[in-house]
Amino acid sequence: MKNELLKTIPRIGVGILGYGFASRPHIVALKRMREVYWPPPAIPECVALCGRTEDKVKEAAARYEVKKWFTDWREMLKDPDIQVFDNCGANDVHAESCIEAAKRGLHILCEKPLARNTEEAKQMLDAVRKARVKHMTGFNYRFVPAVRLAKELILQGVVGEVHHFYGRFAVDRAMDPNIPLRWIYQKPLAGSGALGALGSHLLDLARFLVGEPVSVMAQAKIFLKKRRLMGSSEWGEVTVDDAVSSLLEFENGAMGNFETSRFCPGRKNNQFFEINGSKGSIYFDLEEMNRLKVYLAQETIPSITGFHDVMVTEGSHPFFKEWWPTGHTLGWEHTFIHQLKHFLEAIVKNTPVEPWGATLEDGYRNVVICDAMLKSAELGKKIRVRY
Amino acid sequence: MKNELLKTIPRIGVGILGYGFASRPHIVALKRMREVYWPPPAIPECVALCGRTEDKVKEAAARYEVKKWFTDWREMLKDPDIQVFDNCGANDVHAESCIEAAKRGLHILCEKPLARNTEEAKQMLDAVRKARVKHMTGFNYRFVPAVRLAKELILQGVVGEVHHFYGRFAVDRAMDPNIPLRWIYQKPLAGSGALGALGSHLLDLARFLVGEPVSVMAQAKIFLKKRRLMGSSEWGEVTVDDAVSSLLEFENGAMGNFETSRFCPGRKNNQFFEINGSKGSIYFDLEEMNRLKVYLAQETIPSITGFHDVMVTEGSHPFFKEWWPTGHTLGWEHTFIHQLKHFLEAIVKNTPVEPWGATLEDGYRNVVICDAMLKSAELGKKIRVRY
Amino acid sequence: MKNELLKTIPRIGVGILGYGFASRPHIVALKRMREVYWPPPAIPECVALCGRTEDKVKEAAARYEVKKWFTDWREMLKDPDIQVFDNCGANDVHAESCIEAAKRGLHILCEKPLARNTEEAKQMLDAVRKARVKHMTGFNYRFVPAVRLAKELILQGVVGEVHHFYGRFAVDRAMDPNIPLRWIYQKPLAGSGALGALGSHLLDLARFLVGEPVSVMAQAKIFLKKRRLMGSSEWGEVTVDDAVSSLLEFENGAMGNFETSRFCPGRKNNQFFEINGSKGSIYFDLEEMNRLKVYLAQETIPSITGFHDVMVTEGSHPFFKEWWPTGHTLGWEHTFIHQLKHFLEAIVKNTPVEPWGATLEDGYRNVVICDAMLKSAELGKKIRVRY
Amino acid sequence: MKNELLKTIPRIGVGILGYGFASRPHIVALKRMREVYWPPPAIPECVALCGRTEDKVKEAAARYEVKKWFTDWREMLKDPDIQVFDNCGANDVHAESCIEAAKRGLHILCEKPLARNTEEAKQMLDAVRKARVKHMTGFNYRFVPAVRLAKELILQGVVGEVHHFYGRFAVDRAMDPNIPLRWIYQKPLAGSGALGALGSHLLDLARFLVGEPVSVMAQAKIFLKKRRLMGSSEWGEVTVDDAVSSLLEFENGAMGNFETSRFCPGRKNNQFFEINGSKGSIYFDLEEMNRLKVYLAQETIPSITGFHDVMVTEGSHPFFKEWWPTGHTLGWEHTFIHQLKHFLEAIVKNTPVEPWGATLEDGYRNVVICDAMLKSAELGKKIRVRY
Repeated sequence: MKNELLKTIPRIGVGILGYGFASRPHIVALKRMREVYWPPPAIPECVALCGRTEDKVKEAAARYEVKKWFTDWREMLKDPDIQVFDNCGANDVHAESCIEAAKRGLHILCEKPLARNTEEAKQMLDAVRKARVKHMTGFNYRFVPAVRLAKELILQGVVGEVHHFYGRFAVDRAMDPNIPLRWIYQKPLAGSGALGALGSHLLDLARFLVGEPVSVMAQAKIFLKKRRLMGSSEWGEVTVDDAVSSLLEFENGAMGNFETSRFCPGRKNNQFFEINGSKGSIYFDLEEMNRLKVYLAQETIPSITGFHDVMVTEGSHPFFKEWWPTGHTLGWEHTFIHQLKHFLEAIVKNTPVEPWGATLEDGYRNVVICDAMLKSAELGKKIRVRY
Repeated sequence: MKNELLKTIPRIGVGILGYGFASRPHIVALKRMREVYWPPPAIPECVALCGRTEDKVKEAAARYEVKKWFTDWREMLKDPDIQVFDNCGANDVHAESCIEAAKRGLHILCEKPLARNTEEAKQMLDAVRKARVKHMTGFNYRFVPAVRLAKELILQGVVGEVHHFYGRFAVDRAMDPNIPLRWIYQKPLAGSGALGALGSHLLDLARFLVGEPVSVMAQAKIFLKKRRLMGSSEWGEVTVDDAVSSLLEFENGAMGNFETSRFCPGRKNNQFFEINGSKGSIYFDLEEMNRLKVYLAQETIPSITGFHDVMVTEGSHPFFKEWWPTGHTLGWEHTFIHQLKHFLEAIVKNTPVEPWGATLEDGYRNVVICDAMLKSAELGKKIRVRY
Repeated sequence: MKNELLKTIPRIGVGILGYGFASRPHIVALKRMREVYWPPPAIPECVALCGRTEDKVKEAAARYEVKKWFTDWREMLKDPDIQVFDNCGANDVHAESCIEAAKRGLHILCEKPLARNTEEAKQMLDAVRKARVKHMTGFNYRFVPAVRLAKELILQGVVGEVHHFYGRFAVDRAMDPNIPLRWIYQKPLAGSGALGALGSHLLDLARFLVGEPVSVMAQAKIFLKKRRLMGSSEWGEVTVDDAVSSLLEFENGAMGNFETSRFCPGRKNNQFFEINGSKGSIYFDLEEMNRLKVYLAQETIPSITGFHDVMVTEGSHPFFKEWWPTGHTLGWEHTFIHQLKHFLEAIVKNTPVEPWGATLEDGYRNVVICDAMLKSAELGKKIRVRY
Repeated sequence: MKNELLKTIPRIGVGILGYGFASRPHIVALKRMREVYWPPPAIPECVALCGRTEDKVKEAAARYEVKKWFTDWREMLKDPDIQVFDNCGANDVHAESCIEAAKRGLHILCEKPLARNTEEAKQMLDAVRKARVKHMTGFNYRFVPAVRLAKELILQGVVGEVHHFYGRFAVDRAMDPNIPLRWIYQKPLAGSGALGALGSHLLDLARFLVGEPVSVMAQAKIFLKKRRLMGSSEWGEVTVDDAVSSLLEFENGAMGNFETSRFCPGRKNNQFFEINGSKGSIYFDLEEMNRLKVYLAQETIPSITGFHDVMVTEGSHPFFKEWWPTGHTLGWEHTFIHQLKHFLEAIVKNTPVEPWGATLEDGYRNVVICDAMLKSAELGKKIRVRY
């Protein structure tokens, strides 16, 4: 009987910075771990939430059945029940709090983009390395079953030598001119715009699936230059990119074509990539995340080629066997459950987070490349990527 | 501050019959109510699970953090902490237990098909009517945002007078000849085959979206006539349909075309319907449940007609505003959260379950029509539907 | 050098009844035979056009570079330069003229539906059999490359034993209430409505791909019961179906589901069919006629199943090698070129038209089944098909 | 009666250089002009074909019913029956023959890419300007109904201010290593590779739909560096790009992202573009050329947004009314008929070829931009476009 198991399953306390949109899927992941994975690698407990506005964080704690709440992350990090620091805060609170958490020996899960710039990211990476804690950057799309399947197919040689990575993360979320000058539109707070918010995800998939870029050429644009200050009729300046487009060269010789934009009407969550290799092609669109399109140049019946429209919802597919019977689709938030399970396993089994998950090194390299893109856009020439 | 709210929010105890695939999304719905809806209409608590095999139900209770477990539903129904009986058991335990629960004044949520045949279903309906409890049949697809949007559009007259309901629920789940003769393949236990398991869902959507059928003509087939007995090398006979196809006439003059099959290779969860009206058309496919296709005969720019590919993931769309920002897709199980919320509201506010949710009357009518289809298939002639 | 070939290639004179929409693709097929096929099986020459309105047929002859024109088909049939009678006239002029042409020993290509009813069709079939001429019914969709590929795959056993034919031919062409009471809406002239005009095509594909139906159950509807008389403000009655829906049983045990309608907004030329077999599935939509979707239950890489989206535009695909390089799509009218080539070969090589092409026997059987459907709709019971 | 018209319709003699794949759709366009357009703007006559291999050109003349044939284009250009020189030859015979034809006062239709490099293209442009003849570059995709509709929508302001042109022309045609070192793989003969052969088309659409690019940044790759010499077992070097990827800035501030490749398995004729503006988006894929996807940010029913899947096959759509009833699809070659009709009108009505058609100035500018891309790829920096 497995109930005795319960006593042997490790419990891991988690403290979360943030309680809004970014944190909620993290909370869901914590709460559903034992229901989805049985037995789970560990039973995570959400020990505390932290946020700036006392009333709101308190209410969130009530809503999510979290016992403690803090308004100062420094205080939260001192809590002895916490072993994992889950940073879902805004970009400008990533570095300092993660570094402090690492110093305290906490394992770190930090949302993307890891930092506002290369320097910050490097300090964070140095801190977790020094502390020898487990660390992960929240590139949750590695944990979409279709993306994981793509990775496995590439590793198995199904696609052959990769020639092209062709990807775009396009949405229309920023087009409403009535959206005020939130922190995400301000360089000092956000670091970059569409690039960090969306493009960093796509770039992570490029690295995950193809390899390291060695150079970039890029252009960047701000389409809407002014927005109203929050709660004011005054205008302020948008100081981050609305769109960035970039060409990449990969170490292995593949060509990369990358674009991200918040100004594409009708594109709601269009993180698309296509990979063309010597033996086949793969493409994926986050708007249809339960599917992967796969073309194999060699097929059993030569007249029956054409992209397969694979529903990645079979028990034999990555991540799916814990879910439902064949054909029952997953949603966006479920990637966070897969991600957290991977991180918990790394902690309790002392296994590496990479290569299936993204570490803070992946987060750092991601920032380095984004910074190279912005520099290339500024200078109008090719920039080599140097980690 | 809303935390005081918590004390004022009613708590509702739920006892669940079943602990397998069918129950799990019900359990998830219970557990996530307050996270998804804040404040929730009520805070449901899973008081007990019930199943035949002690070890397994005990383990499930541990896994899902449910305090009590039973191996006899009669015992569970006596538990004073339970106000709602959630029946996720096999078809042959629907009637007796629901009738008993109704007698005890419990509200009833029963999985579909409501019963194995018209007689059973009628007794169940009589019981809940007599007991004046709230009752719901688990036609969860009414709670897909895209389906609800379809309903709203029809009510608003966007589609005009409906001429056609054209629907199919096709899967390939039963094609493997190694699947043994489970209860779902035996008429005494299941009542019917693809018809009750899948077709009943589609039929419910036909009734929900178009109205009452007045007659049916149908054919039914068993493609694989023998399967191995469970855990045996002996053969037993499949006594329920693998596929049923039916023509319907609706009260309002619309034509219906209905088919369900478990023998369609490549179709994984293909519950598809198309509705053609005098002013527009709508179609939906469960395999892409975050989308609704809508054609309007009159458009602002006459050359720009063509089906809209609507991602039903905006805050203004049904059910979506409690979820994520625009474009973040939902999965199959989330329909159960919407469904349960609706049922809880009906209980605590004493509002009707219908028309947005399906009552046991809907469940009963559904069985009546399915029985009429099977009779038509047997007799080779049109059968009028009589409730 | 192939130029001497020209002298050895037989010339075949063709007389066409009709000069409007229905005839034009026939004329194109004649004119392009030698450009598409080189060397062609025969060089067809359009000797004469025939139509009721002298001015118009004369103008059409000028436009299409046809030397002769007639206003009486009896006169045209006497022309000694004509070996093939190509009947593109309205349904009510099919029988009499084809029978007369057969008596004169002309080969017959007749548009579908072959006749207004079973009796007419039988007389036509008797006439061509007696005359021992070559004969073909214009079911041009057998000559869509994707449809032919589907047929070949079924013959090769790729799909296995067929369980389902699921098809629909849906358009929205008849929904405009301002369309007058043309001959196509009148039973005495047209025989039937959507059924003969559209459904006959789909039914032919069902027979071509699956086999003979042995029984039908059907319903039929007229949604718009009155239309203005041509050039008048008076109203007349629509006496043919706007939509027919039918269940079929095939000789080989497969289930058929068939529907045709002219009242489906947004459906422009949606001749769709899906065939599910024991080993795979196929589907096709005429609106995307260069594609065939194919699912194979057994694939080389087990995780890579899913419908193939096959572009049927490779040199190795049916009909394509005479056309363009890979990936260059064909249009609707090109099917007529493939069809005519097949008929010319049958004539000059004395090979059978069937099974790749449809004979007048196929045309006759098609009418028999359509009549059975209408009878079933009237009587509300299953009707056996008897040829 | 329109037959007298025939006498008044001008006849225009055309001489075609080339008789292979590239010429055949030109020949079809000539032959079908009066059938598709009635009355046609002019009746074109294919007076002569020209090719290097006497036997083959003679046979082609027989096949296509062309009276004269030449093996030296200089001789053909002297023929007094020819008013239009239609250059479908290889890239290295474009310049000299077109310049000579212009000197002789012939109107010029020249296939793309106009020339192997900027210098050649400039001389050609100078020649036709000096000769004051009508001239057109064969960018036939401007004449796809869906593309023309896109252009019209942009002109009408439906898309608003354009922010993004995102396009790719991807095929897999060059991946077979057994393809020998044809002229298209040799820089001295072809000028460039995928860029001129495919990318020039896409670039023309970018200019047609968005406007003039002012700068480019690009990368280029040769994936397969050696191929067998024609009819030999010796190896030769591929000296043109297999793929080119480029970022563009447009005069009007829009960002451009452009890629072309012959190494994308499964992509058969994937000329795709998406245009995102301030009010809407449009996308198109040549593999589904009868469709245009259109998103409008403002819709009548706010919940019904989503890309329209427009079948561009209505009589009210560009180019379609001369074709078939609603919903009957066109094929690739039909664009050549639309293109030739436009050119004939320009000749007989003395109207400008631009902006709907591409002139030799468009062809020249296209070459200039392609050369700038190759230069940017070589130098790794942004290159300004200078005409």
